[in-house]
Amino acid sequence: MGCKSANKPYMRGMVVMLYETAAHGELIKEKEALLKKYDEYKKSNLKLDMSRGKPSPSQLELSEGLLTVLNEDAQTRFEGTDCRNYGVLDGLPAMRKLFAALLDIPYENIFVGGSSSLQMMFDTFARHMIFGAYKGAAPLCTVKNLKVLCPAPGYDRHFAIAQCFGAQLIAVKMTASGPDMDEVENYVKDPTVKAIWCVPKYSNPTGVTYSPETVRRFAALEPAADDFRIFWDNAYAFHDLYDRGEPLLNLYEELKKTGKENMAYIFASFSKVTYAGGSVAMMASGKENMEFSRSIIEKQTICNDKLNQLRHVLFFGNAEGVYAHMKKHAEILRPKFETVLRIFERELAPVGVGSWTKPRGGYFISLDLPEGTAARTYELAKTLGVTLTNVGDTFPYGKDPLDRNLRIAPSFPEIEELTKATEALCLCAKLAAVEKYLSR
Amino acid sequence: MGCKSANKPYMRGMVVMLYETAAHGELIKEKEALLKKYDEYKKSNLKLDMSRGKPSPSQLELSEGLLTVLNEDAQTRFEGTDCRNYGVLDGLPAMRKLFAALLDIPYENIFVGGSSSLQMMFDTFARHMIFGAYKGAAPLCTVKNLKVLCPAPGYDRHFAIAQCFGAQLIAVKMTASGPDMDEVENYVKDPTVKAIWCVPKYSNPTGVTYSPETVRRFAALEPAADDFRIFWDNAYAFHDLYDRGEPLLNLYEELKKTGKENMAYIFASFSKVTYAGGSVAMMASGKENMEFSRSIIEKQTICNDKLNQLRHVLFFGNAEGVYAHMKKHAEILRPKFETVLRIFERELAPVGVGSWTKPRGGYFISLDLPEGTAARTYELAKTLGVTLTNVGDTFPYGKDPLDRNLRIAPSFPEIEELTKATEALCLCAKLAAVEKYLSR
Repeated sequence: MGCKSANKPYMRGMVVMLYETAAHGELIKEKEALLKKYDEYKKSNLKLDMSRGKPSPSQLELSEGLLTVLNEDAQTRFEGTDCRNYGVLDGLPAMRKLFAALLDIPYENIFVGGSSSLQMMFDTFARHMIFGAYKGAAPLCTVKNLKVLCPAPGYDRHFAIAQCFGAQLIAVKMTASGPDMDEVENYVKDPTVKAIWCVPKYSNPTGVTYSPETVRRFAALEPAADDFRIFWDNAYAFHDLYDRGEPLLNLYEELKKTGKENMAYIFASFSKVTYAGGSVAMMASGKENMEFSRSIIEKQTICNDKLNQLRHVLFFGNAEGVYAHMKKHAEILRPKFETVLRIFERELAPVGVGSWTKPRGGYFISLDLPEGTAARTYELAKTLGVTLTNVGDTFPYGKDPLDRNLRIAPSFPEIEELTKATEALCLCAKLAAVEKYLSR
Repeated sequence: MGCKSANKPYMRGMVVMLYETAAHGELIKEKEALLKKYDEYKKSNLKLDMSRGKPSPSQLELSEGLLTVLNEDAQTRFEGTDCRNYGVLDGLPAMRKLFAALLDIPYENIFVGGSSSLQMMFDTFARHMIFGAYKGAAPLCTVKNLKVLCPAPGYDRHFAIAQCFGAQLIAVKMTASGPDMDEVENYVKDPTVKAIWCVPKYSNPTGVTYSPETVRRFAALEPAADDFRIFWDNAYAFHDLYDRGEPLLNLYEELKKTGKENMAYIFASFSKVTYAGGSVAMMASGKENMEFSRSIIEKQTICNDKLNQLRHVLFFGNAEGVYAHMKKHAEILRPKFETVLRIFERELAPVGVGSWTKPRGGYFISLDLPEGTAARTYELAKTLGVTLTNVGDTFPYGKDPLDRNLRIAPSFPEIEELTKATEALCLCAKLAAVEKYLSR
């Protein structure tokens, strides 16, 4: 679980000023000092991007072998399937087995798609819109006041899907153990609430892994709508930064105990294992959901790209191969996360500005600034040439009600750039905080 | 244009019997002779498949170089894009340019997707269902008595898409110059007619290429529905069997003359150029359509697999590279088509059973048998172990009103198998015809 840094100053034997409680005169002086530094940064013409969770070139280089592992026709006939030809809609059995082993979900319930799990989520929602969530269910396009639960801060692209389908987005508070389950249990009493978005492990952006109790409460949900579905985007299922990853209770197993496997669709992909947008994605659910989905998908396409699936199977061999590969990612990513956190501790903690998560996996750090200063910080950083995730993007409708959250994506820049960008960001955050406290 | 074989006997100096006009006694004897042969075939335990338009292994071997053309990281940064990472939703510019050159459509109007053009068609239809065909248009899911025009015989998977979305399928007669445009012009006066499926070149299954007049009449359509769209599946755009391909008038250019580019979506793919279901697909339309589609697709996915696009760009280089490659396909396919046609001429023509198209490209031969005998022929062949495309599949709702059409797919089997399968098919067709004429 990503633990929050306490909102108190570090006392490294130096004089420390907490902005929030500082005297007006002190803040004036501090502002002048910060502005001077800000102008210096301005002159250095930064061009730094911490906006999206993209793997860095050195991470992508880890998968160079994927380019050559499949290199002659003889390999393309694999376990009886000619991967160069039409067929095998559900995906190569070996690829399905690999996902089954990684996620501990039965092979039979896994459908391997193209290269984008987001597309599988969109398409699943689209099927629900047009055909309903099961044979006989009302298509969601006929549901008045359609609502979707959005744990926030959360993933902007999830929210955008529900929004583009015309659903009303209901923010659910994220806690240190996952979405506030009291809220969730309460909301699902409304029969027009049809779905919830979840990133259960190393959640985007907080880095929180849902606690066992949270997962159990998800499995125990009794929604008023029998076509309510959990969109369980296990995007960072094996994306640990440290040897000891945070365990996530298996939702599929929990649901199975009470025969409710069809309440959730589980998604995952190799986008942050091999190539971002060029890997293999999957979905899984209960037997009935999968048969229903398949009955529509078989009208949509003949099959997905089995050669890319085969490349992944040959490159990794088995789940152990994936875990070994992820350790190499961690070697690259961990110092980046630690760099950001170290600078936050050094620059922000002493003045009592902000609190942040310390994720043990995934792609993001969530930074909560003093209320009402996130947008200003974003603007100040932008002027310096530091691009952050659009402020507000982690909330439904792109609106952070407290204007305080920033999503930090440390993966793409190299350490030197990342250091500069984080320092610049801290300066901007401090300046925005001082401005806020001065305007009281 | 695929020309029809005249329905008259060949007179190779032998006694010829036209079944249709033969005396009862003659037919009885013929039936006995045919049944004897049929029993011989039965003993030989055939297992032959002429059901789907799949490329054969020898065709797929032509693209072995695609497996190795992209083999190191240095190549993956292409024209400023790291193809291993997220981004470039519309597809690699070089891939878009390749399609632009091949199809003579402006680069700007081309969107390159994943590996399946069928998926792009389904998704386009799905967008129309949920969002309407343009911003402000009524979603098709709200249209009562939604209708889609289906030139028949045509492509079963096209019909299945419209059917699964609940549209009423209206059969339009296919002629030797394309769909009967009198019928089309008449049907589009109905504002609930929202789309038509077209395979304009080497049409599936007739092999007909639409005449210039047909294309011009499509471009000149004035449908009552302003959200009527032509789904122009140019699946066999450069799939000639002979050096002189059949030219197809450029619908995009024709539409442009009157500013109606948004009336059509044009689709194509490399599924029958490189790997079936593992290649690259595209769609194109007018600026407004493309912007509208893109505004939804950007919610659906971050990007498609650019590495596979890059492989294709590197493998072919330019349009000439594709044309040269297609000539190699033709060398393999042409003898197969000619084998089937030769056997039809030898076995069916002398007894006046059936008529068939002689396509100069594409993947299919359309065989019209005496009315009421296609299903029986299919069953007889199935018993022998010869799998044909499900009888009726080339018609809306899988029902051939005259029960006479069979789609022959000569591409997959090797010549020896194909010869056996076609001879077996001819025997079954003759037997079914004799049965029919005996039961008068």
